[in-house]
Order: sequence, then structure tokens, then C-alpha cells
Amino acid sequence: MLQSLLFVPTLRDIPKDAEVLSHQILLKGGYVRMNAAGIYTYLPLAYRVIKKIENIIREELDAIGCSELLMPALQVKELWMESGRWDVYGKELMRLTDRHDRDFCLGPTHEEVITSIVRDCITSYKKLPLALYQIQTKYRDEFRPRFGLMRAREFIMKDLYTFHASEADLDEWYLKVRGAYINILNRLDLHYRIVGADSGQIGGSSSEEFMILCEIGEDTIAYSDQSEFAINAELKDLPVGSPSPDGKGTIRHAKGIEAGHIFKLGTKYSQAMNALFVDQNQEKKPIIMGCYGIGVSRLLMAIIEQHATDLGLVWPEEVAPFKAHIIPLDKKGSETYQKALDAYNFLKQQGGEVLFDDREERPGVKFADADLIGVRTRIIFGKKVAEGIVEVKDTKENTVKEVAINSLTEVLK
Amino acid sequence: MLQSLLFVPTLRDIPKDAEVLSHQILLKGGYVRMNAAGIYTYLPLAYRVIKKIENIIREELDAIGCSELLMPALQVKELWMESGRWDVYGKELMRLTDRHDRDFCLGPTHEEVITSIVRDCITSYKKLPLALYQIQTKYRDEFRPRFGLMRAREFIMKDLYTFHASEADLDEWYLKVRGAYINILNRLDLHYRIVGADSGQIGGSSSEEFMILCEIGEDTIAYSDQSEFAINAELKDLPVGSPSPDGKGTIRHAKGIEAGHIFKLGTKYSQAMNALFVDQNQEKKPIIMGCYGIGVSRLLMAIIEQHATDLGLVWPEEVAPFKAHIIPLDKKGSETYQKALDAYNFLKQQGGEVLFDDREERPGVKFADADLIGVRTRIIFGKKVAEGIVEVKDTKENTVKEVAINSLTEVLK
Repeated sequence: MLQSLLFVPTLRDIPKDAEVLSHQILLKGGYVRMNAAGIYTYLPLAYRVIKKIENIIREELDAIGCSELLMPALQVKELWMESGRWDVYGKELMRLTDRHDRDFCLGPTHEEVITSIVRDCITSYKKLPLALYQIQTKYRDEFRPRFGLMRAREFIMKDLYTFHASEADLDEWYLKVRGAYINILNRLDLHYRIVGADSGQIGGSSSEEFMILCEIGEDTIAYSDQSEFAINAELKDLPVGSPSPDGKGTIRHAKGIEAGHIFKLGTKYSQAMNALFVDQNQEKKPIIMGCYGIGVSRLLMAIIEQHATDLGLVWPEEVAPFKAHIIPLDKKGSETYQKALDAYNFLKQQGGEVLFDDREERPGVKFADADLIGVRTRIIFGKKVAEGIVEVKDTKENTVKEVAINSLTEVLK
Repeated sequence: MLQSLLFVPTLRDIPKDAEVLSHQILLKGGYVRMNAAGIYTYLPLAYRVIKKIENIIREELDAIGCSELLMPALQVKELWMESGRWDVYGKELMRLTDRHDRDFCLGPTHEEVITSIVRDCITSYKKLPLALYQIQTKYRDEFRPRFGLMRAREFIMKDLYTFHASEADLDEWYLKVRGAYINILNRLDLHYRIVGADSGQIGGSSSEEFMILCEIGEDTIAYSDQSEFAINAELKDLPVGSPSPDGKGTIRHAKGIEAGHIFKLGTKYSQAMNALFVDQNQEKKPIIMGCYGIGVSRLLMAIIEQHATDLGLVWPEEVAPFKAHIIPLDKKGSETYQKALDAYNFLKQQGGEVLFDDREERPGVKFADADLIGVRTRIIFGKKVAEGIVEVKDTKENTVKEVAINSLTEVLK
């Protein structure tokens, strides 16, 4: 990709309204622009990362047998009356009427819609289980949107719904999804803990949250730095730095970001909405459900919080917008520039996801922008190009080595 | 993919409210479900096809130097007041107020938002041209939604906006995008014609429509069956079957589907919204713009219209939901079923996109559903499995050949 066409409107100063580091980097690095309070445009650099996050989620959910669909954002009032949530949900539910004065809401979540679809199609235990998910733009009219993408009014979510003929089958799928979530967060190179949680407005019998450990967020969580997943509610009363009761590690605190939430819904929606199936004994029963969310746009912020550097950030390998960033230190027309452009075209032809800084800017500006773009491997075409040599910087390890131009394909592997 | 988990709720009867063939197949084949008038859920089979259509669009636009971003669906009234469209657009614009009584609309198109973003970031000719697109859910409150996805109220569109310092540069990009559109429609295996068109509510100086040739749709177009792209307005008065004036082919008529529309906008929005740049002579001028749409969900219907068969349909290669469909004719536990399952797992491991009919259904039901699922290559595990032989049916050519089970990887190539 030519950087001039990518549209990365970086800023020199930190915007005053951005309180937290990741939000500052998002604005300064030309990743997002605010259109109204809590409503953002994802500019090309951010959207490349978001698509990669989405594909990791798809891969892990598809691997356990989930199917992707897409439900509408516009939902009819009648379905929300059936579940009882129309009156309960309050002002966070964005409501509108169409030209024929029919009431709709913009979906913050899709239990009603998916339950109505499944009840019309599934009548027998023979068609269960089912696991259906979507990655979609959702709406929640927050009273006070803040922290950039953390508490936005229009945001991207993955929501998965599972349907079962027995509690045992729900339990099995719940664990499968939990495993997929662990894989997803590990691939995103995020540090997190799984916390037992309230079910909030979604309802249901039991649920867990995947909390990303960082200084921002809206909950303080206490955890042992050596424990793998679980959080012990009892840790909350122990002072930071004291030994964990299990003898493994010490107690830490963090203001965590909720990146995922998994629920055993049970029959809350299927009972209210009459989603029934006939079991092996020809008995009619409500379908047993689970639901599982991931805040996709929120993950973008969580990754930045954990991967920020003094100068900008370095994206984790699997979601980096590019695999390498080529920077020529001389102007268009020079041999240095031409050699860099040739290398870019060659690597692109090989299928490499490479960004080429073709702009007429000083090296200082190019490097400052590159720090915000956050590609780990930076290939600098400078003084030694005449000798066939370039500098390859690993911005994560902060190391530089000299590499022959004709062996650059090795660098991308 | 296991067919039992894919969720393809096929219907035995043609739904009465579906007037056109493609809409009937969409409902009968378990591709979509209507949630309200003009508002649909794309079930997993349809969404697989849609994602492939989207990726073809991405590949062709990225190849000419466009960058993808994602703008919000919620747009503030103030921007639409600047362009003057808030009062002009009428009831098709879905409007709502947030909890603080601020006015918003749900975007049917994004000229205002993209112009506001670009004007805040681009001040000099040095930063032009730019070509920014999104693939997004859009809203239009049609008075009478009909023909399924053809005239829906919530639909998926690709919209591209280009920004230029000169008319000549707009002309150049317009042709590049036109070329990309031709590539896209060819890869989708669609027959179409390019027609000079009105610019409608978008505005601008000149525009062309990409019309898919079929019996449904809302415009009658007259074309010569041998001409490549252009439609001659004068052909309209010539009788069907008469020779075309250029001597190449005969005149035909069709009720076409508008799948794409490309516009030279000029300075309509940049002037109204004060999106200015400084040119090489330090003069301030409004940015010159183009805009280019593709109806993604509409393309799904257009493809079905052109690829329907007597029994269902056969998807074009590049957008088929799967590369092969494995159907065992015997039940779970039988050798036939087990051999089919082994072949499925093997092909999947090789990276093949394969659908496996693991359902407890009679062969007649399996075949009827397979005709609606529309995968061209069908691998049938039947009586000769004990001899290591299966039937491979090419449903497009309607031919069947016997193939050794251990050479099935060849079939997928």
C-alpha cells in the first residue's frame, strides 16, 4: 500500500479531550475520528486491524462449529414486548419510528431476533444444537460516552447464541466457546483474567467476563500475577503485593476492560417467546440457550493499551496493519527512492502486506508517523543503498541490523 | 462444515409473498428470513456468499489504490443541513433523536460524513488524490419494500468516494473505478450493460449505472446482444429482435437490476460544506469529488436470477458458499457414511471448503436441499463405496463421473 493513498491523518499534538493513552494514540495516529459523542469513523489503518481481529474471531468460532449470519440492526418493538425488555431497557435503547409509525429499536443485542428466527425453524431435538453468531454494528445510547471506543454509542460486537436440548449440552458448548475465547485473546497477545460476573440486562443463570488487564476501564479487579485464568473474589480484600492464598504469585490490582462476556441464559428468552422443541419423549420444552459477546472495537483499544510504547505502539503480529513498513530517506527521483520502490513492488508481488512511505516528508516526520502506525518490521532505505544494503529495525525489540536488499524476502518470513 | 450445524432451514413450498424467482429461492433455500417489511436476516449460507462478494469488491478496489474505512450509520443532522439534504430527502431518510434530543439520521449514503472528515484533514493538493470506501449496512425507508433484497429498507452497500485537485484527475480515477466495476461483475459471472443515467438525489454532473440483465428489476433497458458495455439510448425505440444500428447483433429488452452506480460529483458537496484545498498556485479551491456505489445484498439476488436452474441454482465459482458438497446416501454408523466422513475430514484438513451432509434425512431430501444450496461439485457416497468409488456430479454441466475416493483432492483443484 502506498502511504499517500492510505489516508493516515496523524496529529502532532495530543488532543485535549482524550483522557486515556489508547484514545490519545487512536486520535494522534490517524486511526479514528469522532463524528459525534461516542460515534466514530474507523479510518483505514484502524479498520485493517479491526478486520484482522474479526477474522481471528471467525476462525476460532468456525473451528468449534459455529455458523456466521447477519441480523438486522433495526428490530421491531413487538419482539421486545414479547421478551419484556422494551419497557425495562430504558434510555440506552435507541428507538425510532418508521414512515408508517411503526416502532423500532436499534439493536444493542439480538436475543429477541435470533430467538424468533430459531423458534420458526427448529421444532425437534434432532435439529439441535445450533451455534449462530454475527459480527455487527450495535447501538447503546450511553448517557456519557467516554474513553473513545471503550464506551461508545455505535460499536462493533461479535455476538454468538447457542441453542440446546439439554443443560448438559449447554455446559459442553459453554466450555467450547470459553476455550475459543481464550484462543482469541491469546492470538491478540492480550493479558486478561476470567471473572465470575453479574448477568446484567441480558439475564440468565451464570456468566463470566474476560477482563483485559490495564489501567483504564470501569472495574477494579484483583488477581494473582501467576494464576492462569480464574479470579478469586476473595482476593479483593488482600493488599496489593501480598502473597496469593494459593502460594502462586502475588496480588495485583488493575481498572480492567471488559472484552468478552459469556452467559448461560437457560430458558429466559425461549420461555418468554415460546421457542419450543419436541424432545426424544415427544414432550414440548423451551430451548435452552447460551449467549456470548466480544467487544470488537473495544479490543482495538485494549490492544493499544497493552502494546503502547514511549513513542507510539507496536501491534501484535497477527493484527498488525502491515507486515513491514518501507521508508526511503531520499526524495522521489533519487536512486534510494527508486530502489525502495522496486523492493516494495517486488515484496507486494510476493504477496507481502507492505506499506511504502511515498510521501514528500522529512525523515523525522516519516519516523514519527511510523512509530504511531506501529508496524514491527521497519525497512529503511538510507545511505548504504548504493552498496545494496538497508537497515531493518525490529521496533519491538528495538534492534537494528543491516540486510542485503536482495534478501529482504527472508525478513518478511 | 457439518450441514447440521450450518442452519439452512429450507422450505418445501414456495412462499406466497415472494413474487420473483430469486426471492423464492432465497426463502425456499434457507438463505434469508424476513424480520419486518424490507428488513432481512442473512442466514449462514447467504452470508458466506455475501462475504465472498465483499472480498472480490475489496480486492478489485484495493488493486487500484482505494483504502477501506468504516463510517458510522448514525449521522448528525447538522451535516445534512450543511449539504441541504436534510429537508430535501423526505420520508426515505430514517430519522431519530438521541436521549439528549439531538437529531440524527441513519445513513442511506455518506457524502456528508466523508466530506466532513476529509475537509478536516486535507488542506493541500499534495495530499490528493484520495479514494476511500466502506462496505456497510445502509438504511432507506422505502414506502413499499419489495422483491426481497432488491428494494429493502436495511441493506448492504459498498460506497466509494474519491477526492481530486483537478477534473482531469477525477476523470482518470472515474475510469479506473469503472474498470474495477467491470472486473467485479465479470468475476461474479454476471451479464450486464453500462447505461448513462440520472444522478438522482446524490447530485453531480455525470453518472453511469451498471444494470444486470434479467427479467426483474425496475427499469426496462434496451441493448444490443453483441455490444460489450455501452447502451445506446436510441435503441429504446427499436423493436426487439431488429438489427442493432452498428450492425453488431440484435436488439433485446430486459427489466434490469441496478447493481452499481458511478458519479462524477464535482464540487456539489465540497462547495456546500466548505471542503477546500490550496492548489499549486496557493489558491483555495473546493475539492473535486466522485462517488461510486455497489448494492452488495442486491448482487446476491442478481446472481441468483442469472444462475437459477429448474431445481434451484448453481453458484458461480468465485462466490459459491462451498467448493464441494459431500452427500452420503447411508446412515450414521454405516461404512458408506464413515468413508464419506473420513473424506470430508481429509479434504477439510487440506484446506478445502467442503460441506458435509451429516443429517439423518432420506436421499431425496438431501438432493432437493443440495439443489437449493447450489454447490457445483457434488460428491455422492453411494453403493460403490466398498469398491473405493464415488460419484462426482457437476451440477452446472449436469454430468456425472465415477472417481476413486483416494483421488478426490484432484476434484477440488
